[in-house]
Amino acid sequence: MSSSFGERVKITIFGQSHSEGIGVVIDGLPAGESIDMEEVQRFMQRRAPGRHAYQTPRKEADVPRVLSGLFEGKTCGAPLCAVIENTNTRSADYEKLKVTPRPAHADFTAEMKYDGFQDYRGGGHFSGRLTAPLCFAGAVCMQILARRGILIGGHILSVGDVADSAFSLTDINAEILAGIVQKVFPVCDDAAGACMREKIDYAREEHDSIGGVIEAAAIGLPVGIGEPMFDGLESRLASILFAIPAVKGVEFGNGFEAAQKYGSENNDAFVLDSTGEIRTKTNNHGGILGGISSGMPLILRTAFKPTPSIGKTQSTVNLQNCKEEALEVGGRHDPCIVPRAVPCVEAAMAVAILDLLCISQINE
Amino acid sequence: MSSSFGERVKITIFGQSHSEGIGVVIDGLPAGESIDMEEVQRFMQRRAPGRHAYQTPRKEADVPRVLSGLFEGKTCGAPLCAVIENTNTRSADYEKLKVTPRPAHADFTAEMKYDGFQDYRGGGHFSGRLTAPLCFAGAVCMQILARRGILIGGHILSVGDVADSAFSLTDINAEILAGIVQKVFPVCDDAAGACMREKIDYAREEHDSIGGVIEAAAIGLPVGIGEPMFDGLESRLASILFAIPAVKGVEFGNGFEAAQKYGSENNDAFVLDSTGEIRTKTNNHGGILGGISSGMPLILRTAFKPTPSIGKTQSTVNLQNCKEEALEVGGRHDPCIVPRAVPCVEAAMAVAILDLLCISQINE
Amino acid sequence: MSSSFGERVKITIFGQSHSEGIGVVIDGLPAGESIDMEEVQRFMQRRAPGRHAYQTPRKEADVPRVLSGLFEGKTCGAPLCAVIENTNTRSADYEKLKVTPRPAHADFTAEMKYDGFQDYRGGGHFSGRLTAPLCFAGAVCMQILARRGILIGGHILSVGDVADSAFSLTDINAEILAGIVQKVFPVCDDAAGACMREKIDYAREEHDSIGGVIEAAAIGLPVGIGEPMFDGLESRLASILFAIPAVKGVEFGNGFEAAQKYGSENNDAFVLDSTGEIRTKTNNHGGILGGISSGMPLILRTAFKPTPSIGKTQSTVNLQNCKEEALEVGGRHDPCIVPRAVPCVEAAMAVAILDLLCISQINE
Amino acid sequence: MSSSFGERVKITIFGQSHSEGIGVVIDGLPAGESIDMEEVQRFMQRRAPGRHAYQTPRKEADVPRVLSGLFEGKTCGAPLCAVIENTNTRSADYEKLKVTPRPAHADFTAEMKYDGFQDYRGGGHFSGRLTAPLCFAGAVCMQILARRGILIGGHILSVGDVADSAFSLTDINAEILAGIVQKVFPVCDDAAGACMREKIDYAREEHDSIGGVIEAAAIGLPVGIGEPMFDGLESRLASILFAIPAVKGVEFGNGFEAAQKYGSENNDAFVLDSTGEIRTKTNNHGGILGGISSGMPLILRTAFKPTPSIGKTQSTVNLQNCKEEALEVGGRHDPCIVPRAVPCVEAAMAVAILDLLCISQINE
Repeated sequence: MSSSFGERVKITIFGQSHSEGIGVVIDGLPAGESIDMEEVQRFMQRRAPGRHAYQTPRKEADVPRVLSGLFEGKTCGAPLCAVIENTNTRSADYEKLKVTPRPAHADFTAEMKYDGFQDYRGGGHFSGRLTAPLCFAGAVCMQILARRGILIGGHILSVGDVADSAFSLTDINAEILAGIVQKVFPVCDDAAGACMREKIDYAREEHDSIGGVIEAAAIGLPVGIGEPMFDGLESRLASILFAIPAVKGVEFGNGFEAAQKYGSENNDAFVLDSTGEIRTKTNNHGGILGGISSGMPLILRTAFKPTPSIGKTQSTVNLQNCKEEALEVGGRHDPCIVPRAVPCVEAAMAVAILDLLCISQINE
Repeated sequence: MSSSFGERVKITIFGQSHSEGIGVVIDGLPAGESIDMEEVQRFMQRRAPGRHAYQTPRKEADVPRVLSGLFEGKTCGAPLCAVIENTNTRSADYEKLKVTPRPAHADFTAEMKYDGFQDYRGGGHFSGRLTAPLCFAGAVCMQILARRGILIGGHILSVGDVADSAFSLTDINAEILAGIVQKVFPVCDDAAGACMREKIDYAREEHDSIGGVIEAAAIGLPVGIGEPMFDGLESRLASILFAIPAVKGVEFGNGFEAAQKYGSENNDAFVLDSTGEIRTKTNNHGGILGGISSGMPLILRTAFKPTPSIGKTQSTVNLQNCKEEALEVGGRHDPCIVPRAVPCVEAAMAVAILDLLCISQINE
Repeated sequence: MSSSFGERVKITIFGQSHSEGIGVVIDGLPAGESIDMEEVQRFMQRRAPGRHAYQTPRKEADVPRVLSGLFEGKTCGAPLCAVIENTNTRSADYEKLKVTPRPAHADFTAEMKYDGFQDYRGGGHFSGRLTAPLCFAGAVCMQILARRGILIGGHILSVGDVADSAFSLTDINAEILAGIVQKVFPVCDDAAGACMREKIDYAREEHDSIGGVIEAAAIGLPVGIGEPMFDGLESRLASILFAIPAVKGVEFGNGFEAAQKYGSENNDAFVLDSTGEIRTKTNNHGGILGGISSGMPLILRTAFKPTPSIGKTQSTVNLQNCKEEALEVGGRHDPCIVPRAVPCVEAAMAVAILDLLCISQINE
Repeated sequence: MSSSFGERVKITIFGQSHSEGIGVVIDGLPAGESIDMEEVQRFMQRRAPGRHAYQTPRKEADVPRVLSGLFEGKTCGAPLCAVIENTNTRSADYEKLKVTPRPAHADFTAEMKYDGFQDYRGGGHFSGRLTAPLCFAGAVCMQILARRGILIGGHILSVGDVADSAFSLTDINAEILAGIVQKVFPVCDDAAGACMREKIDYAREEHDSIGGVIEAAAIGLPVGIGEPMFDGLESRLASILFAIPAVKGVEFGNGFEAAQKYGSENNDAFVLDSTGEIRTKTNNHGGILGGISSGMPLILRTAFKPTPSIGKTQSTVNLQNCKEEALEVGGRHDPCIVPRAVPCVEAAMAVAILDLLCISQINE
């Protein structure tokens, strides 16, 4: 079903950009888990707009209100529902979009799909705003995962043609992840980060936008997480990652690079580490073999297209009179969505991994 | 559930590489659809091993036997089950793999996940052989899609560092797809194809293997196919594509390249074509906006790692005595899985698209 | 997943009796459907407590607030979320229930299942209060069904040993259903209704409670609704009806009576009606053959046990000191839940039928 | 999806009465479980036709062939598929049923649903024959449950108006269940059984059929099995039980009788047994409170209508010429399906309970 994800831990996201509220129901969380709401709030702040010069000036409190599922600060077995009120919305900005769909947005396809009944204001249910409840769900799942030794973190791998240092496939660790997460602009190499910010500034000044890639890792997964075939880690992770608006590509381990390699280069030999644990010498497989976690760091990359909303004049077709028309998109938009998308990628990973973890425990 | 895929049209795949049989149940097919079993057979032959010098010499008839779901040559509303008997298997080749897992295979992770009870022979349920029932299901779905004007076809975009010409994002059409599918070695540019075959020959001679990328397109999709958020076309397609063994990356439209672009370059302007239909001038979005089909060609690329089974000596860990050990993988293997994987990608696409098409018809 | 129901139209219910709020997300509703919120409110009032002498004096506004999914009064394709705030709750009434579970309630089983972390106040997620969002969802679905000629209505068939006249299996019609629904105490025979109310009064005076049976019908279903085997109408309806607290039995058509009949008595002959339509002469099958609607009225009966909460002293076991203990349940309770459960049964039917209707349209 | 059941342990049943084969895929079984195929075969024999005078003389070997999912006699984590070939079918018996649907069968509704494309021979996918793969799946699940101390068994509670002694709600135990299962005609009171057989003989002689009720129990369930709301034990069990052809009613504990009781009579007091375990004094709740197992015996009753196929002349409508017509159903049919349905009920319970058991283990 379209707005639900997960089998054992299942999230259902609701809301439109300009409806009264948005939110998420999380069903199937293990009972008895303490949820630190301040930590959840801090996590969500990483996604929230309006914090920096390179972001949309639109400010939203994004304070989730938990209606159910917690009892005395702990999960109680019942579905957890959190609601975020929509405030500070300027619907008038969007009204003309019903007839003149914005290029690269879902305006056109949704208008066709729903026979003209879709809530077109601000992208409706297709708005990037709907990643706020995803981040809420992810923040909750992350706390439960952390208690089981599983940590997730990501960084901006590139903005346009400016690249950060990539994570080491074999040596990414808790310390590095913790360090990155605390940065306002999460990159490994702050010099590269400065160049990226310049790139974003340039795009904003040009009334343009720019794309980028996010790399993220999950460490501490035990061997054996992930179901065979259609519910392997890659399938489940890709499935939820592509639900984040603007994602156009997902790869695991060395990803597309693997397609250029010989088997003798790409295969990761099994070795014993100093403690006698089995691991692989290299980690081209990105921690996943046959859809199942191998115990090595799980590493993935997600490609984001440039924010579709740009100030520059674009061509579109007026759906009412069926004529081509010039369009200038007003409103307030991020020239680069990638910095705010880092916690979204982490959240999506947390939801998918916790679900598979809970499923996998059956076989233990 | 791990080995089932789909909501409305649902496939369930069963079997292990060396079990008595493998097969698929397809539930939810529309009733009254003629299925041409010879065409199904022809489609499956494109995946079958042993046809060419650059493939494993292992020969399998791969003749599916339909047990149910067809009546007088047409789907009858009941689940369609097809079984392929496993013959010509040499289990002895694989016995030592229980204790010495092959690098880059699922041997290790499955052994851990199933506490030593997995059927390790030939990769068990994780074997590439399980793509035969996927191709059966895809062939059936393709016939139903074709009747509705939707065609799917793919080619080898690259093998190692040798590249074929890419499909035109805007101009890929039925004629080109039909032409490619008839080729024994499906590429656009046969000269590039010849180089690829040399590359594969070289890998085989070196007892090595090599990876590659498959590009595929679906044309004729009406606007509006795909559900929002977690059941968008990209999510569903990626989910099933990553279930094909060896896939490490999936991208749509211009994919990872979009991450390097400015919005003004990447956005696809809406225009009117000569017949007054709305289309986009460019097709960087690959036919999908907001997870929903735009009416433009749906184009994707799938990265395959090199076949993990290689003749060269590799390092592994003996699970019994917990010592590192040299491993030479016997058996018969494709030096490059990519040519045989083309119909697998097409089949996966057909299954996912037919499912979403049937779901979407509800709103019409 | 526990608190979600449906495949195509899917509801997810959240909340506990004493959490901040309760509510429901309805995903997959057809777009463009007008929803009359006043009618929804009227429907929900039929379930609301505190309206009559024979009900709990606890008064709740039960005013649902729609956060999403409606746009200009119509469904817009996005999930519809409605929230009801919890007010007028007296948690103190329930605190001792953590250690002394009430007989016939879920207190004990939930406490065990969730290792002591469940929200025991007022039954938590297991409270009858959670039928309020079910009624909201049902009211929405009913409006969509009515637009397609499908009407649903129920009456109190019995309270204790006092019985109302049963619906005619063959002749139940829109007029009768409309008439019953408007009654404060929905019975066919008001004299029987008066006896029932006396029975309920007696139970209340005795600090006791009493059970009853609800009979309900859906008319206007086209032939062909319902999927074979596990998703037949009976399976889906029973599945959701047993989710209403206190339901212990469900039967269709002549139900358990069929078990006493000969085939020659029980089989419903096919005949032509005056307009040339095929129908059955009798309707022992209750409108369902092979799980699929036959075009005859769909009729079912649902048995409700007496309200578990009674004022009389009962025996329980103290979970803390593991000793048997006398329990007097305080709080405010309905001596008979059946009158308020009528709209719950109707709502459950509406949700299940709309889901199957939307699924079935695919084959048309 | 229509022919699949279960979330964690999922069965998918395929086949039509006269297709080449029928069978089942069971996905999600815990790995490492020994399956005794002879015991499976013995279980299936209890359902097989042709064993007794009171059954159809049609003889079928019903020997399941396991294609996958077992390795060295144990479940291996991959989906288990078993196929039963269809032999000894006489299609000619059924050909006229396409135009003259049999009363009380699915012929008419399926013909309408599938626009005339359904496989009408012998009831197609709606045939009682499809309970053979259900019994296979149940037999497998039962062995896994037995290893965890959970036993399931049923008896014929009534045939027409002849009743067996009911199970004691509180005292039903392993010994009684084991004793009943070994009987050719499974009743508690053999004298009642003799009367039932006479009743069945009479029905056969009259070319008629007769209905009945099956009562079944599951003992040894730990407290806490079953998910809240829509996935409670009653919802899941009813859902699968109504998938057995001819079932028209399902009740738990004292079922419909509860509707006639006062709360003070019906509530089951919690007490301590001699070993200090918490149990209930009575068991009107049938082992389920709030959808969750209470540790008391789970008891249910299932009403079967009389076999629809009878030799007596009946009225139907010819779908071709739209005229009423007299119908004599040929073929070989059970005058009473109830004796053979006992293992079907047990199998359905085993599948649903194992699924919920596997799900519930997550919270431990």
